[in-house]
Amino acid sequence: MPLKTPEEYLESIKRDLNLYMFGEKVNEFWKHPIIKPSINTVMKIYELAQIEEYKDLMTVKSHLTGEVVNRFTHIHQSVDDLIKKVKMQRLLGQKVACCFQRCVGFDAANALYSVTYEMDKKNSTNYHERFKNYWIDVQNQDLMVDGAMTDTKGDRGKRPANQTDPDQYLHIVDENDDGIFIKGAKVHQTGWINSHRAIIMPTLALKPGEEEYAVSFGVDTDAKGITMILGRQSCDTRKLEKNKLEVGNYKYGGSETFVVFDDVFIPNENIFMKGEVEFSGELVNRFAGFHRQSYGGCKVGVGDVLIGATSLLTEYHGVDKASHVRDKLIEMIHLNETLYCCGIACSSQGFQRESGNYEMDMLLANVCKQNVTRFPYEISRIIDDLVGGIICTLPSEADLKSEKVGPLLKKYLSVCDGVSVEDRYKLLRFIENISMGVAAVSYKVESMHGAGSPQAQRIMIARQANLEEKKQLIKDILDID
Amino acid sequence: MPLKTPEEYLESIKRDLNLYMFGEKVNEFWKHPIIKPSINTVMKIYELAQIEEYKDLMTVKSHLTGEVVNRFTHIHQSVDDLIKKVKMQRLLGQKVACCFQRCVGFDAANALYSVTYEMDKKNSTNYHERFKNYWIDVQNQDLMVDGAMTDTKGDRGKRPANQTDPDQYLHIVDENDDGIFIKGAKVHQTGWINSHRAIIMPTLALKPGEEEYAVSFGVDTDAKGITMILGRQSCDTRKLEKNKLEVGNYKYGGSETFVVFDDVFIPNENIFMKGEVEFSGELVNRFAGFHRQSYGGCKVGVGDVLIGATSLLTEYHGVDKASHVRDKLIEMIHLNETLYCCGIACSSQGFQRESGNYEMDMLLANVCKQNVTRFPYEISRIIDDLVGGIICTLPSEADLKSEKVGPLLKKYLSVCDGVSVEDRYKLLRFIENISMGVAAVSYKVESMHGAGSPQAQRIMIARQANLEEKKQLIKDILDID
Amino acid sequence: MPLKTPEEYLESIKRDLNLYMFGEKVNEFWKHPIIKPSINTVMKIYELAQIEEYKDLMTVKSHLTGEVVNRFTHIHQSVDDLIKKVKMQRLLGQKVACCFQRCVGFDAANALYSVTYEMDKKNSTNYHERFKNYWIDVQNQDLMVDGAMTDTKGDRGKRPANQTDPDQYLHIVDENDDGIFIKGAKVHQTGWINSHRAIIMPTLALKPGEEEYAVSFGVDTDAKGITMILGRQSCDTRKLEKNKLEVGNYKYGGSETFVVFDDVFIPNENIFMKGEVEFSGELVNRFAGFHRQSYGGCKVGVGDVLIGATSLLTEYHGVDKASHVRDKLIEMIHLNETLYCCGIACSSQGFQRESGNYEMDMLLANVCKQNVTRFPYEISRIIDDLVGGIICTLPSEADLKSEKVGPLLKKYLSVCDGVSVEDRYKLLRFIENISMGVAAVSYKVESMHGAGSPQAQRIMIARQANLEEKKQLIKDILDID
Amino acid sequence: MPLKTPEEYLESIKRDLNLYMFGEKVNEFWKHPIIKPSINTVMKIYELAQIEEYKDLMTVKSHLTGEVVNRFTHIHQSVDDLIKKVKMQRLLGQKVACCFQRCVGFDAANALYSVTYEMDKKNSTNYHERFKNYWIDVQNQDLMVDGAMTDTKGDRGKRPANQTDPDQYLHIVDENDDGIFIKGAKVHQTGWINSHRAIIMPTLALKPGEEEYAVSFGVDTDAKGITMILGRQSCDTRKLEKNKLEVGNYKYGGSETFVVFDDVFIPNENIFMKGEVEFSGELVNRFAGFHRQSYGGCKVGVGDVLIGATSLLTEYHGVDKASHVRDKLIEMIHLNETLYCCGIACSSQGFQRESGNYEMDMLLANVCKQNVTRFPYEISRIIDDLVGGIICTLPSEADLKSEKVGPLLKKYLSVCDGVSVEDRYKLLRFIENISMGVAAVSYKVESMHGAGSPQAQRIMIARQANLEEKKQLIKDILDID
Repeated sequence: MPLKTPEEYLESIKRDLNLYMFGEKVNEFWKHPIIKPSINTVMKIYELAQIEEYKDLMTVKSHLTGEVVNRFTHIHQSVDDLIKKVKMQRLLGQKVACCFQRCVGFDAANALYSVTYEMDKKNSTNYHERFKNYWIDVQNQDLMVDGAMTDTKGDRGKRPANQTDPDQYLHIVDENDDGIFIKGAKVHQTGWINSHRAIIMPTLALKPGEEEYAVSFGVDTDAKGITMILGRQSCDTRKLEKNKLEVGNYKYGGSETFVVFDDVFIPNENIFMKGEVEFSGELVNRFAGFHRQSYGGCKVGVGDVLIGATSLLTEYHGVDKASHVRDKLIEMIHLNETLYCCGIACSSQGFQRESGNYEMDMLLANVCKQNVTRFPYEISRIIDDLVGGIICTLPSEADLKSEKVGPLLKKYLSVCDGVSVEDRYKLLRFIENISMGVAAVSYKVESMHGAGSPQAQRIMIARQANLEEKKQLIKDILDID
Repeated sequence: MPLKTPEEYLESIKRDLNLYMFGEKVNEFWKHPIIKPSINTVMKIYELAQIEEYKDLMTVKSHLTGEVVNRFTHIHQSVDDLIKKVKMQRLLGQKVACCFQRCVGFDAANALYSVTYEMDKKNSTNYHERFKNYWIDVQNQDLMVDGAMTDTKGDRGKRPANQTDPDQYLHIVDENDDGIFIKGAKVHQTGWINSHRAIIMPTLALKPGEEEYAVSFGVDTDAKGITMILGRQSCDTRKLEKNKLEVGNYKYGGSETFVVFDDVFIPNENIFMKGEVEFSGELVNRFAGFHRQSYGGCKVGVGDVLIGATSLLTEYHGVDKASHVRDKLIEMIHLNETLYCCGIACSSQGFQRESGNYEMDMLLANVCKQNVTRFPYEISRIIDDLVGGIICTLPSEADLKSEKVGPLLKKYLSVCDGVSVEDRYKLLRFIENISMGVAAVSYKVESMHGAGSPQAQRIMIARQANLEEKKQLIKDILDID
Repeated sequence: MPLKTPEEYLESIKRDLNLYMFGEKVNEFWKHPIIKPSINTVMKIYELAQIEEYKDLMTVKSHLTGEVVNRFTHIHQSVDDLIKKVKMQRLLGQKVACCFQRCVGFDAANALYSVTYEMDKKNSTNYHERFKNYWIDVQNQDLMVDGAMTDTKGDRGKRPANQTDPDQYLHIVDENDDGIFIKGAKVHQTGWINSHRAIIMPTLALKPGEEEYAVSFGVDTDAKGITMILGRQSCDTRKLEKNKLEVGNYKYGGSETFVVFDDVFIPNENIFMKGEVEFSGELVNRFAGFHRQSYGGCKVGVGDVLIGATSLLTEYHGVDKASHVRDKLIEMIHLNETLYCCGIACSSQGFQRESGNYEMDMLLANVCKQNVTRFPYEISRIIDDLVGGIICTLPSEADLKSEKVGPLLKKYLSVCDGVSVEDRYKLLRFIENISMGVAAVSYKVESMHGAGSPQAQRIMIARQANLEEKKQLIKDILDID
Repeated sequence: MPLKTPEEYLESIKRDLNLYMFGEKVNEFWKHPIIKPSINTVMKIYELAQIEEYKDLMTVKSHLTGEVVNRFTHIHQSVDDLIKKVKMQRLLGQKVACCFQRCVGFDAANALYSVTYEMDKKNSTNYHERFKNYWIDVQNQDLMVDGAMTDTKGDRGKRPANQTDPDQYLHIVDENDDGIFIKGAKVHQTGWINSHRAIIMPTLALKPGEEEYAVSFGVDTDAKGITMILGRQSCDTRKLEKNKLEVGNYKYGGSETFVVFDDVFIPNENIFMKGEVEFSGELVNRFAGFHRQSYGGCKVGVGDVLIGATSLLTEYHGVDKASHVRDKLIEMIHLNETLYCCGIACSSQGFQRESGNYEMDMLLANVCKQNVTRFPYEISRIIDDLVGGIICTLPSEADLKSEKVGPLLKKYLSVCDGVSVEDRYKLLRFIENISMGVAAVSYKVESMHGAGSPQAQRIMIARQANLEEKKQLIKDILDID
């Protein structure tokens, strides 16, 4: 059985990376306190897949190999698979309260599976076979695969070829019989450094004349020519401090990488699109669709933790019986479950592509993500309300532990009888972290921009909603020709 | 096959009713212009069930009789049944743009099916068999069945037995060997007069000592002792005017009836609950749950028509290309599809009861309805924005047709070339009707209060959301005992 | 003193109008039940001006005549005048719970006062003197003056001159030494028929080549060549029924008129703009600004009545102590007072024009109106929530009074002890009327479109907000050149 | 003239404090990088008061001394003073984009001025004279005065005297002929360490039996027995890093202090309330009212900077012409100006107290603050939308400057031609800081909880809104007795 244990996964990613942080090269990144939580998070995926209770969600029999594989490497074979994907994502969100980073490659694979099939059908290429072989390898080794879409884009008002610097959109700069050479950068890469591989896709729908930008391929994350620079995040350096509770969610987290490709060579067998501009838009849309579905699971799981944390804290403070507190908790639940409804609905209404795999409903997946750009913000606002101003005035853990002022803080931070000051402190830091720290990156900004900014969904909603059909409905009722 | 044609249905409801309107008894109600649209609407249900294209949604094989029956009489046997219910409701909403009135009895039957089973199991009663027999009859005759829940309630701060007038909650006032006698009133009955039968349920969860109020039964809508008074609706009398376009949706509509029971006799075989206070709450919840699911279909269908109408009107006016207009249409679609997501999700996550039938997910159904109390209002606000002030200043159809001022109106109501003034007039009246007329009753106030007022859903959301489990999630992450 | 009594006002508007309704000419319109409430409303203005308690708000010393005049005819001479205008409007909204129709002309006059001054200064015309003379007459006779802006516009995608029918925008069609001839139509005229005069303005900012549309003038509402057609409103014909409580707000209301100009002659002395396209935009903006300010008063007053009505009804129903009910009432108050803040603020920040009169702050007035397009809708949604479904299922007053079913209704419509069924009935009809009836025209659609649709305010907000200055602020803080 | 220069202010606060941070005593706090920005901010107040352009807003003639004083020490003598207060606050928000910390003491003084007068009038005490003398000293020395209200509160479900630890609410623990001894803690003290003095007030309305908690007094911030512990804030330690741009707003900021009183002696002449429980609620309300007014100025000024920053960044990115971008900027402006309307309106409607000073309108001030708990969150959400995901994935300034990866980042972070990468970097960090860093503390959490949490305003809104009067309005219209 190809399922890696968490420890095996950890060992397997210990490799030398061309990775920079704070202007310095990072060695043995897997030991770095700023990066470690993101590795812990991925390890949790491998861990849960080993536990009987979660096997139904976390694993599935591959249609490619017949083996039981981690669901994150699965190509959906049914509506049930689509629904279980969302449930698995909610489960993981509940366990780690942050982005677990393995969805992007997962969603990219499911998009490529059908798009390569359709390209081949039209153009007699053999991308689909290539991709299947590539992915069988992923399944057999239970690899962590990232996906990469967002280019740096330069002047957003210009097409790729009109940029002052043509590398603002990742593109093919050369080729030979064995493969192609790639230049450009992919940004906002949440799981790059702790992934084995990555699938690269174009960042937008391309037009004839833009063939060099219509490129998709698999690449080892540590391939020659790749430079990684870790992004800064709010409160990142708290992870370097000796008092771990300051971190908030001190076990789990994410990291964001700026990935530069400098004449990276991609062998032919790993290329899944090369110049097919007419399919680039569809690849973008399908990947985005799958990924917009994902948010109806993962962010809901994080929401569950937040609701639990807020509820617990109101108990600690002795305000949990107040009617306005109860009502605000209900509102949080309502909004969170509305997101879940969207995640489930776009899965439930999935359909089979000609290539055999199942795809979510595109309209509802975009509706799902559009709500994700709104409700986590409102949930977070309610949390700020319920937890009180103390989340931004709480003294340091060092003060809490100090001989001098520690006793004062312990005295004055006491709340209801029987509640430990340390537990209250943990919750407050956890919530500060979600409201304004590292976790806000994942719960808020990523909810806004991950899988496409709000306007991207609105464009898709406009396209998917059959306005002509709706106009016919009213014409029928009112006898308008 | 037991499927009635629309005409057979119409014939079958031609009966003498003890019905009052404007202080007068109504004879041959099926000819009354104020009531006719609501009959047309129900006829549409029977009509669609005859059409090949819609058979998959509109009909289904009964597990009770083995016959193909109208889905509105079906006891759900699978998750697929639950999903098709919602799709059928969206379809009907699209065809009639109003409440089609056959869901209440449908939802009541599905709730009673499992509750009677569970009562029998606990108390060795035989309600389940009774109910099945009663319902087989309904299926075999393709009967239109209403459901009735809301009592008049008197002083809302007091329990039923503490009311100054004990009849404020419908109750058993007497009984003999053959049956019981009922007194009280059921209000907000949308489909009573054009239904053959009705299922009566308690209006709230009852407590020991309130046994006389814990009563559920089937009754013929024209049973002896029943008095009906038709409720007024905004713009109801426009249907009495000679110019039909003034009505807006001149084909379809609903009607609301105030139903008074004065010592109505119910024979034993039609009684499905009698004094089982401990099951009353569950009957209320399950019915409400099924009915809150329903709103994720029917109101979405109406929303489709409204989006179509608004879109068409912006074309007529020549503003459909304006970016703010397009964006508002997208917002309407987004909100409407979010409701649909909720309807689909609570169906998709349905489960099987011990009695064998399937039930929606209770939490998500309440989330669905809670959104229905919000989004149609916002959709309606956007419509008011997009269509312009003319919906409340438009002169009468009589003026439009008059020799004197008709030409002036035709001249000045012209918009884009090629658009007929009459078509514009139709759309404006249709939208006025939704915004402020008869249809606002159904699209707005019913969205607010049908299947329970907003606070009722919040109470259920609080109950269904497992807060303890959510608190455990954060305790696990932060190592809090 | 030029203040008319209400009775004098009533007598003074008894004139023969070329007015149509339901395809028929209306004679003695002041007796017509559909129109009477709008006359009552205006009479209330005259009545309050006679009452000592209200004199400070309702009257003011004219700077033109030195006489005490009704404030509705005043040209603002100070910030205090601007603030009192808003307070007077709130007061009137509280007294009549609908549009009182005298603001449009009031706001038009205040806009024309400074624009005519500036035109004269630039072009050596004498519009300002003309206008002052015209307005002195208005003050001396305490005339009710309407204002008219909205043209029928035809294809909204085309300029006036490109319309298929050039009359879609009101324009000068001919002229002679004594004056001009006008053709076109002005729609959405709330107070036309019960006004003595009207001030006509262009509907948008015009460009060179569109001089014939750049016209403003005063006109008697019954001038030769004017045809009026009364607009239909939701539930208008309830006012024709014999049971007055059905009307809801049975004393007060508004009416909307479609006014057609067919070669109407305007003598030179009543012309205040003729071809000055470069000032047309400023006239539109100033009028709109004053009128957007007005909404921060009148709708707030109506909101006060609605809050009172809803609060009273929740008492009648016995739910006024429920925490969610109290919270929703607070939300209504909060939203209503936020509108008032906007009305007060744009007045408080008013400034003096070169012509000497005072003008509201343009940015804040637009912010005010933009909120008016949102909050009354939300207030209305909360009302629908708090009052219950009964507002759309309540039987007729005739049923309530009938011998047959009246006793049943009285029994079952009883609520808390001591509450009369008739009082409850009055409140329910009043609220139905606001939610879906005649009053919804004024409280909702007029809030949306009166003084310009939402997008119009957004354009003004964009223009008025000094973005360059705001960019400089951040440049200063971050030392960006 | 008593106006200090910024440099004089800086010198005057260089004193030894019993201040802790990260478990260590802080020496020469004015040099500490984490604290310095908050001192810079206060210096800006002193600086602007020296500049001719700002004198009208920043300074005013004292009614106590006849001297020109900094407005932050003024007791409002007119409505104009109240309005200028708000304008001064907007100005300062525009200059520093954060909390400038001098309002709390300012608002406390204005509340105490009238409450002491009224206590004296009722009880023949001499608090008012004491307070005036105390405050004349403040004016003459142009002192920075903090205000302190929030106690630690322990179990929020219990009254002060029922707490397990009686010190959870600050109280008098002993007294002698010369004064009183104080124990307890005041939290969320934004400007304590860089203030010369502080005014202490009770945290809630007290009841008979709670006299020891009904205490108000002035105290030197470095008085014997006071221990200060600096609160942590998101990203606080970035200020310790060598690359200053990482800080975002690297010049200005705030700091939050936890202040513990351990038997602090207060001499009689500095005591302004001692046991007058019946006035404690009024002191809390008036202070809160003045402070809720303040938010209608300061947060609007910060909002101006944010709108400028976002607008500038969209230009840099080349998306400023997109209609949805423009529309979102308009929405930000609209929300920001709505807050300003509330700040202005509650000032404009101010009134004179018997003590002679002017107070804002209490209802509108609470409405103002309630909006502040909402709109900055929505503005911030829009900012997150418009600026893109890069705010949470941007590599460090050290990377940008490094020889190794700096050139890569400069290449790929380029946007529109002519935009410097460093300027873009500054804006992104500034916005990250507002969205998730130190400035989020001030713009979001402080907007939520400063001057009282949302529920506190709702309680006041309910109390201030005259519901009885509103009920009378509808009774008058409907002739209900």
